[in-house]
Amino acid sequence: MKVAALTGGVGGAKFVLGLEACGDVEALTAIVNTGDDFRHLGLHVSPDIDTLAYTLSGKANKVQGWGREGESWAFLDALKSLGGPDWFMLGDGDLALHVLRSHRLTQGETLSAITADFARAWGIGAAILPMSDDPVATMLDTVQGELEFQHYFVEQRCVPVVRAVRFAGAETAKAAPGVVDAIMAADAVMIAPSNPYLSVDPILAIAEIADALRATAAPVIAISPLVGGQAVKGPTAKLMGELGVATDNDAIATHYGDVIDAMLHDVSDAPPSAIAARATPTLMKSRVDKIRVAREALQLARELIGR
Amino acid sequence: MKVAALTGGVGGAKFVLGLEACGDVEALTAIVNTGDDFRHLGLHVSPDIDTLAYTLSGKANKVQGWGREGESWAFLDALKSLGGPDWFMLGDGDLALHVLRSHRLTQGETLSAITADFARAWGIGAAILPMSDDPVATMLDTVQGELEFQHYFVEQRCVPVVRAVRFAGAETAKAAPGVVDAIMAADAVMIAPSNPYLSVDPILAIAEIADALRATAAPVIAISPLVGGQAVKGPTAKLMGELGVATDNDAIATHYGDVIDAMLHDVSDAPPSAIAARATPTLMKSRVDKIRVAREALQLARELIGR
Repeated sequence: MKVAALTGGVGGAKFVLGLEACGDVEALTAIVNTGDDFRHLGLHVSPDIDTLAYTLSGKANKVQGWGREGESWAFLDALKSLGGPDWFMLGDGDLALHVLRSHRLTQGETLSAITADFARAWGIGAAILPMSDDPVATMLDTVQGELEFQHYFVEQRCVPVVRAVRFAGAETAKAAPGVVDAIMAADAVMIAPSNPYLSVDPILAIAEIADALRATAAPVIAISPLVGGQAVKGPTAKLMGELGVATDNDAIATHYGDVIDAMLHDVSDAPPSAIAARATPTLMKSRVDKIRVAREALQLARELIGR
Repeated sequence: MKVAALTGGVGGAKFVLGLEACGDVEALTAIVNTGDDFRHLGLHVSPDIDTLAYTLSGKANKVQGWGREGESWAFLDALKSLGGPDWFMLGDGDLALHVLRSHRLTQGETLSAITADFARAWGIGAAILPMSDDPVATMLDTVQGELEFQHYFVEQRCVPVVRAVRFAGAETAKAAPGVVDAIMAADAVMIAPSNPYLSVDPILAIAEIADALRATAAPVIAISPLVGGQAVKGPTAKLMGELGVATDNDAIATHYGDVIDAMLHDVSDAPPSAIAARATPTLMKSRVDKIRVAREALQLARELIGR
């Protein structure tokens, strides 16, 4: 099967790894959220793209859930000694992505071309596409005022109560080259179990991408990020509460609306009432878990295709 | 005594450390070559300023002669894995200086203000002043065409035969704030045993600085970089041969001309014939060596002041 997967960082990357490793996907395209991208110390940081690259190349730190395995911190220590900002963890190896990407962007290359080069250099089989080569910034309207994503997520540890989320630049952003084609050519489109409001919505905010999801003949399947009414990691459930929606799969299905055709959800939660659904344990700890969840999602797709 | 010292990187930094550690200098200003500065991967690298900062804060790698003690190389390894350029050695800790400096320069701060902050953060007592806040680039006209300093020095390992050296931007560059004042207020001005043609000439190419050296009442003393007709490190002797001058202290004194009043030189070499001179073993291996050479230079200054 040809599969396109919309994804954010950590949880989404696990699911994409499952798709790649399960042996049933002949062509895999990850369409990655860049609403978290930001400039830090003059460097262009793309957290979700980097998490995908680390995960699919076997470099991800499995314990900590982000960054590189065996990372060192000499840069950050020296930066701290110079009075520089240390709230955002920049590892020594991680910096190579940021420095080289920033330099190549300054020279006029696109984020998608640079990302493709990095993936090739690391021997990654799947295509990793940023959702857009244009800047889109996830901005959180909080009780403390508007915060950029990383300041909310990392510096403020998701503490400020969120009233609304917007995606600055999304109105005019174009899908990156290959994104719409991958969705239209796919046998199945997956929305990874990333935060719908913070990690998937930026992708859906690009009109070309939302239109392609509605237009494609392929079934579009959302994997619910909820396990027992909670997010495995991150602020999904807290945020849903603050935005005034129930933390259940009905709310997530309603939120995605006509963009999705079906949902794979955890066995501990009720299925959404209005669309096709399949239940499986969705917690992905081991490689075996990831492959199993991916296969369940592919099976749901096959059932929809067969109808 | 109040001392101002013009200096390049490694050899010069050792001498400046001697001045600071000898106990006879109450106010020390290092005026540092920035002709070697260059942009690499979009980062502003100031090799000589960094060498001074590492040396005076006790962070310098004493064996290798450049960079930080205990440096790690995870960034460079990752950069290499991405196909990035690895000819210039960027250590993990070293990167903090480059990234923070580049970022602050982009925000409109001056190199001299940033350098002063770094020195303060690291508890350095001496003032470290870049020769200028304006860009000056040491360019080598070689048999392989014109090369920027770092490409000649690091990438090409000083192999290409040099026909001439120029300092792009020096005609219009102003001395950095404090440079002229430090020279005019000094009891003695030292020219460290750096490469006269590559490390000191960029400083002298700034008219304000050369004028101040001629105008100051303080004696200006050059410490010869030659030991037994050879440079301790680096391409000084090779370059002098290629430029058609003898590799002796007369040639160096003639080169500096009316900018200097006297020379401290190694016991194994003949003194310059036309100016005051003092001989001492100038090889600086230990801290004791550095302090002794500094004291000999200060003694020569005292003799000139006493005349």
